[in-house]
Amino acid sequence: MQNIPLVFWLIPIASICALGMAWFFFLSMMKEDEGTPRMKEIAEYVRRGAMAYLTQQYKVVLYVFIALAALFAFMAYVLHVQNPWVPFAFLTGGLFSGLAGFFGMKTATYASARTANAARKSLDSGLKIAFRSGAVMGLTVVGLGLLDIAVWFLVLNGLTEDSLITITTTMLTFGMGASTQALFARVGGGIYTKAADVGADIVGKVEADIPEDDPRNPATIADNVGDNVGDVAGMGADLYESYCGSILSTAALGAAAYALVPEMQLKAVIAPMLIAAVGVFLSLLGIFLVRTKEGATMRDLLKSLSLGTNVSAVLIALATFGILYSLGVQNWLGLSFSVISGLAAGVIIGQATEYYTSHSYKPTQKISEAGLTGSATVIIKGIGTGMISTCIPVVTIGVAIMLSYMCANGFDLSMSSESLAHGLYGVGIAAVGMLSTLGITLATDAYGPIADNAGGNAEMSKLGEEVRHRTDALDALGNTTAATGKGFAIGSAALTALALLASYIEEIKIAMERADVMMTNVKGEVISAAQATIPDFMNFFQVNLMNPKVLVGAFIGAMAAFLFCGLTMEAVGRAAQKMVVEVRRQFREIAGILEGKATPDYRRCVEISTRAAQHEMILPSFLAILIPIIVGCVLGVAGVLGLLVGGLAGGFTLAVFMANAGGSWDNAKKNIEEGNFGGKGSFAHKATIVGDTVGDPFKDTSGPSLNILIKLMSMVSIVMAGLTVAFI
Amino acid sequence: MQNIPLVFWLIPIASICALGMAWFFFLSMMKEDEGTPRMKEIAEYVRRGAMAYLTQQYKVVLYVFIALAALFAFMAYVLHVQNPWVPFAFLTGGLFSGLAGFFGMKTATYASARTANAARKSLDSGLKIAFRSGAVMGLTVVGLGLLDIAVWFLVLNGLTEDSLITITTTMLTFGMGASTQALFARVGGGIYTKAADVGADIVGKVEADIPEDDPRNPATIADNVGDNVGDVAGMGADLYESYCGSILSTAALGAAAYALVPEMQLKAVIAPMLIAAVGVFLSLLGIFLVRTKEGATMRDLLKSLSLGTNVSAVLIALATFGILYSLGVQNWLGLSFSVISGLAAGVIIGQATEYYTSHSYKPTQKISEAGLTGSATVIIKGIGTGMISTCIPVVTIGVAIMLSYMCANGFDLSMSSESLAHGLYGVGIAAVGMLSTLGITLATDAYGPIADNAGGNAEMSKLGEEVRHRTDALDALGNTTAATGKGFAIGSAALTALALLASYIEEIKIAMERADVMMTNVKGEVISAAQATIPDFMNFFQVNLMNPKVLVGAFIGAMAAFLFCGLTMEAVGRAAQKMVVEVRRQFREIAGILEGKATPDYRRCVEISTRAAQHEMILPSFLAILIPIIVGCVLGVAGVLGLLVGGLAGGFTLAVFMANAGGSWDNAKKNIEEGNFGGKGSFAHKATIVGDTVGDPFKDTSGPSLNILIKLMSMVSIVMAGLTVAFI
Repeated sequence: MQNIPLVFWLIPIASICALGMAWFFFLSMMKEDEGTPRMKEIAEYVRRGAMAYLTQQYKVVLYVFIALAALFAFMAYVLHVQNPWVPFAFLTGGLFSGLAGFFGMKTATYASARTANAARKSLDSGLKIAFRSGAVMGLTVVGLGLLDIAVWFLVLNGLTEDSLITITTTMLTFGMGASTQALFARVGGGIYTKAADVGADIVGKVEADIPEDDPRNPATIADNVGDNVGDVAGMGADLYESYCGSILSTAALGAAAYALVPEMQLKAVIAPMLIAAVGVFLSLLGIFLVRTKEGATMRDLLKSLSLGTNVSAVLIALATFGILYSLGVQNWLGLSFSVISGLAAGVIIGQATEYYTSHSYKPTQKISEAGLTGSATVIIKGIGTGMISTCIPVVTIGVAIMLSYMCANGFDLSMSSESLAHGLYGVGIAAVGMLSTLGITLATDAYGPIADNAGGNAEMSKLGEEVRHRTDALDALGNTTAATGKGFAIGSAALTALALLASYIEEIKIAMERADVMMTNVKGEVISAAQATIPDFMNFFQVNLMNPKVLVGAFIGAMAAFLFCGLTMEAVGRAAQKMVVEVRRQFREIAGILEGKATPDYRRCVEISTRAAQHEMILPSFLAILIPIIVGCVLGVAGVLGLLVGGLAGGFTLAVFMANAGGSWDNAKKNIEEGNFGGKGSFAHKATIVGDTVGDPFKDTSGPSLNILIKLMSMVSIVMAGLTVAFI
Repeated sequence: MQNIPLVFWLIPIASICALGMAWFFFLSMMKEDEGTPRMKEIAEYVRRGAMAYLTQQYKVVLYVFIALAALFAFMAYVLHVQNPWVPFAFLTGGLFSGLAGFFGMKTATYASARTANAARKSLDSGLKIAFRSGAVMGLTVVGLGLLDIAVWFLVLNGLTEDSLITITTTMLTFGMGASTQALFARVGGGIYTKAADVGADIVGKVEADIPEDDPRNPATIADNVGDNVGDVAGMGADLYESYCGSILSTAALGAAAYALVPEMQLKAVIAPMLIAAVGVFLSLLGIFLVRTKEGATMRDLLKSLSLGTNVSAVLIALATFGILYSLGVQNWLGLSFSVISGLAAGVIIGQATEYYTSHSYKPTQKISEAGLTGSATVIIKGIGTGMISTCIPVVTIGVAIMLSYMCANGFDLSMSSESLAHGLYGVGIAAVGMLSTLGITLATDAYGPIADNAGGNAEMSKLGEEVRHRTDALDALGNTTAATGKGFAIGSAALTALALLASYIEEIKIAMERADVMMTNVKGEVISAAQATIPDFMNFFQVNLMNPKVLVGAFIGAMAAFLFCGLTMEAVGRAAQKMVVEVRRQFREIAGILEGKATPDYRRCVEISTRAAQHEMILPSFLAILIPIIVGCVLGVAGVLGLLVGGLAGGFTLAVFMANAGGSWDNAKKNIEEGNFGGKGSFAHKATIVGDTVGDPFKDTSGPSLNILIKLMSMVSIVMAGLTVAFI
């Protein structure tokens, strides 16, 4: 048990502030008027559909959690290869991640009609409601995350005699709970939303030539429900997991890095939590900076949003120096530069994402141009652009890894155990820095689907051209800010996964200590696992790049990313086909539907999406959990490390490719809709709609799920380390 | 200098037999009648276009070779960081690889009209000419490969006092010459053929509704030229490189593995060459087994082809026991099983490829079905299927690596230097086993484009329905056998790349010896590089999975594969767009062209493809050469090993994905053309044509080039090892 320094209490305080402000924003949004009866009715449809789906999804996930918690309990209480707190930590991680998604979605479903209604007055009022509602989600995620972390830390530190290393690695299983929940949320939600979206687009836009969100389209309610369960609830669970994962893995690295310096160890554990806590306050500041005057233009809006996020980011960079200095962390200066390199990498990746996906730049314009020669060249161009776009993010992450590593250990590349541990701690803290302003970046992200849904509501309620224009403007704004958000999300995933690699090694050592297994060092002397240096460890477990087990592991890791994407793509394809068949059937069989005289059967389409998502999310999610376990049992520690490196390198690149290809197809279509290359309804427009449709599962199902996959595989390996050791 | 055993002479004899038979088949093909004046005219067009392109391509490549050879000469004679024979070995590798492609293409361009003419008589006569002409290519490749290997070995062994380790690693640079040539041939040829094909399909099949190879289509000659320069010359250079690469890297591994057992070392070096030599004789036997009776059905044809390849494969498996036993190789039994595990892996990957790409099976049928809901679902399904299809090949290669490794070192997983070296030699020899029957497998592969071109000639010469049916049947047969061929090509690329990893380490050691650089072993004692064990080496160069340099290298490796694919995809997209614009222009401006009353301007289309290929092949090819050099200079040995592992794992998976997705789109379209899901001209057919068009660069440009990329990056690293060491 350690004496908790006073400054620690800043963490629960930040958490409570975040949750309180989220509650406040929620209440003030609820006070707004929801608009005409028609608007209320539509909002109610969407809300009910979304809640019904989420309830069903949570049921499936509940079974999975019960099964896994039982397994961990068996490992902890019967086999004694895991810490007794693990099943509980795992369950709370899942619960809180689910709660974050739930609250975010509840807010979003209440906010969309209100945003549409406010947009009837002015662009500015619409922005305010949508953004503040997005902020509810951002603040809920960081508030719940810090709460869970603070409480667990206090409990484990207060009730057990465990070392800080054991405490922090136990808390990591809480991250595994969050990852598992997030994976199901992203995959299930992603399949739901894209089945509806693709189906609605193919029959509605391409075949029947009716606009998006047209009430005559039977899949339109399902599409709007999908935005909520996929883009809101899924994203909430996802980023909750990223946020906690980066803090927890860095804390674990800190405990390991300074294991022999007792006065530093606790500080190193607390530092990432503190940076995150201060980030909450700065995010709040940023959120209040987002305000526009009456009659603001798009430029003003964008400026206002950017101001909020940029001020928060710059301030957290500056504050880090203060936090680390006043905490008295060794090498506070270097570590602060690690944080800055992480932040800078996030910004650069965000800019690169924008360059490759925004139609203000050449790559996406060229895809629009390819529309002139048909859909095949649009697809070829988009895939080419997406693949090329992996270059900058990968090089940036590479540079950020090297810089944050070297800043943290005083430019020591000797690979001594100490220098390595300090360096990896630096990589972890760079990821924490990237995500520290999540409160506001997630607000700008979550605001997108709210604006999107507001547009849907406006269209279905026939609110008129002008309102729809305003909601479209809000939506477009969301797309631009989302690019930066994506940069941070994907960059932090890569850095966190790297930190988790190191945590895996620590966990293997702990498991060996627990099982009283001795090992030999490089000189052939028998030592305990705790005494092992990294070269000892690598040598003992034969983790070397010539070991076929490592290489086979790396092959399987890269393949796992492709397999996982393939399964989710196929799931969307299958579900979308069913949706198309159903929508065509309704157009054919329900008389007067296309003239707007008969109401489509929205419920059937909601059912198709729900059932498809429920059914199709099982296999890919299970694979993500099973592959590291199987590799661990068959190929041992060497194979698992190969798997994680292969999965990380292959998965990160694949994720960037899919996200960017999808984004640029989307905007290539928007570019044409703005009147270029023939404009709406032209041959090129039809060609780019095909691109957009293909891109939907790229950017909203398979791509973002990969972020979780690469971390979940590490998490599973860490939690199962005890079993792997038992197999040695 | 070693005493060459008598049995060595089997290698040049095999080479001469292969070349002699190739010459014989060529002459007997030339004796056949080329058909009507119109057929001759078309063949002449295609032949001239192909030769013109190849001449131009070789010019560009010549400059590259001169530059690189000058660099190597500088390294060898001025910096003294490379063996003085290297520039010459490099040049001959490039020359012979180019020659293999050239002869293959020359034969193909003479054979296609003759095949079409023979098909006027019977299916059987068509098969005979096409297959024997394909055999010219197969035999030329293996003949030139063995000739080059045998001569260089005799020269280096006779004229120098170098050790076998130095001789074999010097000969590897000959592999680098072949790789470089192959890369340009595959990329340039691939861009050429797909620009023409995609362009011809989009305007011809989709917009103007005229059949494939219709003489009214201005791009049709360019398309047929493309088949020759891409699918024939490109493939020839590619497989020449694979063949030599696997033999040479295995020889180098053998020299290293048995460095301390002089009586074994020479045998281990010669063994892979001997297996290949015996494979030539067995391939010849297989080629003569391919013969059909008058009035043979498609089934008979397929049976006949399969009989040839299968008999050759089974016999080489059996012969290996005899060769290794009589050569007196240590652990001959285990090594023979390594060969068998390689062969089995090739067969399994081939079967899996067929399962995922043939429309006799569900995955491809489902893609056809997706055509009913439009091109977007076809693309989504195809990408999903392609990604899922990576699973079996990756797992198979993983199992083959483990088995061939363990069989070769007596199931010793201790990772001692000896056990590791013997195991890796086993992996290499498995790759040699896979490719040993290349003489016949390549014949069945090269026969495909000949049949395809014969079909083109028949269509353009208006030879009538029946002849076209026969050439289509021949073409379809080629597609089926090609699946197996692809399994062997891609599987052997992965195993060879793995063997090259080990060669890289050997080369670094040699470079250190040459530069008199000492190192420390794991115990901290100063030793020479030659004395270093694998753990010493890995420890000294900090090659460990926690080193950020290794991780960043792995990231860049995976990214390099994507970047390379993206660049080639974009190149095809750009060139195809130009082609579409030109074909549309001709349709618009040349009066009577669509009624067949005016001749299209074929020349312009040939020019567009030629210029695009010339221009676009430079950047991706240079990147492949530059990336490993830059990584070596910046991140050192650790970074390069990370790069190679990341590139291998990511590149292999990506290559399988692209090849299979492309193949299944192609056959999904053929499936519909056979009358399913609405048949030719239906909505579903148009949708699958989009899929097929997207798949063209997947399977014929980007996918196959990746096979070369992953090996070329290793080759470049090996050759540049001296520079990397100088940078330490």
